Amino acid sequence: MERREFLKKAGKVAAVAAGVGAGCAKAKEAPKQAVTKTYEWKMVTTWPPNMPVLQTGAERFAKRVEEVTSGRIKIKVFAAGELVPAMGMFDAVSEGSVECGSGAAYYWGGKTPAAQWFTTVPFGLNAQGINAWFYSGGGLELWEETYAPFNLVPRPQGNTGVQMGGWFRKEMNSMEDFKGLKMRIPGLGGKVIAKAGGTVVLLPGGEIFTSLERGVIDATEWVGPMHDLRMGFYKAAKYYYYPGWHEPGTCLEVVFNKTAYDALPRDLQVALDAVAAETNMWSLSEFEAGNGAALQELITQHNVNLVRFPESLLDSLRKMAKETMEEEASKDPVARKVHDAFKKFQEQVGIWGSVSENAYYNVIADKFNLKM
Amino acid sequence: MERREFLKKAGKVAAVAAGVGAGCAKAKEAPKQAVTKTYEWKMVTTWPPNMPVLQTGAERFAKRVEEVTSGRIKIKVFAAGELVPAMGMFDAVSEGSVECGSGAAYYWGGKTPAAQWFTTVPFGLNAQGINAWFYSGGGLELWEETYAPFNLVPRPQGNTGVQMGGWFRKEMNSMEDFKGLKMRIPGLGGKVIAKAGGTVVLLPGGEIFTSLERGVIDATEWVGPMHDLRMGFYKAAKYYYYPGWHEPGTCLEVVFNKTAYDALPRDLQVALDAVAAETNMWSLSEFEAGNGAALQELITQHNVNLVRFPESLLDSLRKMAKETMEEEASKDPVARKVHDAFKKFQEQVGIWGSVSENAYYNVIADKFNLKM
Repeated sequence: MERREFLKKAGKVAAVAAGVGAGCAKAKEAPKQAVTKTYEWKMVTTWPPNMPVLQTGAERFAKRVEEVTSGRIKIKVFAAGELVPAMGMFDAVSEGSVECGSGAAYYWGGKTPAAQWFTTVPFGLNAQGINAWFYSGGGLELWEETYAPFNLVPRPQGNTGVQMGGWFRKEMNSMEDFKGLKMRIPGLGGKVIAKAGGTVVLLPGGEIFTSLERGVIDATEWVGPMHDLRMGFYKAAKYYYYPGWHEPGTCLEVVFNKTAYDALPRDLQVALDAVAAETNMWSLSEFEAGNGAALQELITQHNVNLVRFPESLLDSLRKMAKETMEEEASKDPVARKVHDAFKKFQEQVGIWGSVSENAYYNVIADKFNLKM
Repeated sequence: MERREFLKKAGKVAAVAAGVGAGCAKAKEAPKQAVTKTYEWKMVTTWPPNMPVLQTGAERFAKRVEEVTSGRIKIKVFAAGELVPAMGMFDAVSEGSVECGSGAAYYWGGKTPAAQWFTTVPFGLNAQGINAWFYSGGGLELWEETYAPFNLVPRPQGNTGVQMGGWFRKEMNSMEDFKGLKMRIPGLGGKVIAKAGGTVVLLPGGEIFTSLERGVIDATEWVGPMHDLRMGFYKAAKYYYYPGWHEPGTCLEVVFNKTAYDALPRDLQVALDAVAAETNMWSLSEFEAGNGAALQELITQHNVNLVRFPESLLDSLRKMAKETMEEEASKDPVARKVHDAFKKFQEQVGIWGSVSENAYYNVIADKFNLKM
């Protein structure tokens, strides 16, 4: 209630401000002078303060935009809760109380089911695949179409790469082991786990470790080694499972209020787009390098057991994931259209991925003595 | 000879022009006005006209730079041979006869052996890995250090992803089959093939197809399905081998004349850097999507035999590649330093790659019925 009130008020203020802004852009100054108009923007994010790559990536985006525009766009970034709660980002940007936000599209499945395909899909595209879909396969246009009714313009702004499967207090040998398993796993992955007979528990980040340590939950997924190490999960659960079938290439988004974005001169729109793509690239690189270092620390200093999910279990989860995505796709015509396009693109790059990246990884992997 | 003469002359003209440019940047105009100074630049590339993603990527880079800077930097792009020959790019940019160029660092191993690590290394990092090395692992700083003596500033500007192993007129079952094999394969891969007893043949792009068809060569590598399909190699050789162990993630470069780059105001430097990263991301996406579509066409319409190199053969090639890289690293201290850093980073991300991307690819790959 309180949040709604706040957003309403903020929305009104912003509407006025946006009006003023729009007015300025079309003002009676000579057109050639308009290029020097400056924009003071706010960004709200769904990330806790200082969260590596997620929140710091949003801050990096803002900094680079300011640099590349010589200060013509200044973006002040607010972490979750500093201006609006994490899950208030979508509404705040949509209503125009702030001009932009950073988050992940799958948080907004309740607003529009189709949003769920633009972050990551269980057993779907990895980072290289989903970026190819966005930039070279029509995915971004579909995302824009999905967000347009909310007056939002989305851009990919980061990617975690393949995540880890999660921390488990017991070994997972068959689908039976999911029955009654209490696991913290949100989103589509959670829907699959529920289908498998698990009990999905939703917990804020700050409560996960204690819940896992005390056995209130039996398992949790989080991100990957870099973030998981900071959370200390290795002290609370013995088995670190891979691969993260539920989040094989999680895309982080930056969204702009469409009215604000459309009012910008073309060069500033391109600046936002180019810096979003640059941050996307930087972010995946940070994850790759940081996860590599953190995984070594987890193995060598904390004796973590890296375990691959058994094949039969992955097969079953994949069937359930397929059912889940079909159910979500049936929710509305936009979701159906996006689902079909996503599937088609995954088929397009599938065999190619197998003879390129996959075949190559298999060649260089054996020296690490891991059972893939 | 002719080329040297031309470059010398071009160099002199450019030196004068660069002097004028530098003078302008420091001119007596009020400093705040300097921001509106415009730059008309030339870019020469190592790519044939219209070459997809390679030449068109360089053109896209120029277009986006012009857009994001509102025309303050205009870059006129010349394909190989239009202004200087393909292999004249490095010198032309170094001497300042043009302000920038697009190519690949491994072409310049004769100028400085260390350059060879900044494109792709046989059995080295893939695209995700080499980008992580550049942006988040100190790789770009080492590249800058390597190019600084040539008055050049390098940036990653594209990546092909894992390439294909090449087109062969006969099956490759053991290392014996390399003895006397005439293969068109340049660079480090060629050095490995020579070590394996093959005869390395260097041919311009326009002569490869006919040579392969007539049996003047027994095999050729090129890029990946998208480019190979256009070359029609499937009409001249029966076996399409994978994976491209010799080029597992080929980085394309944009290089700037350092004097010209350093003379730019900060916002324009950031514009070049951000658009280079954006183009890098776009380029890998184009390769991923385009290779996926082309591979399907090669399989379904041209009945191409996709064959994986036998394990024992890959093992032997890897040992030879290791020797080759050691030999190259011994050529000078910079090469040694770069080699050691590259190896260390590959170890850092190695296990992570195995439990993330590799493990995930293995899970989704089986439905394509390919022997990995």
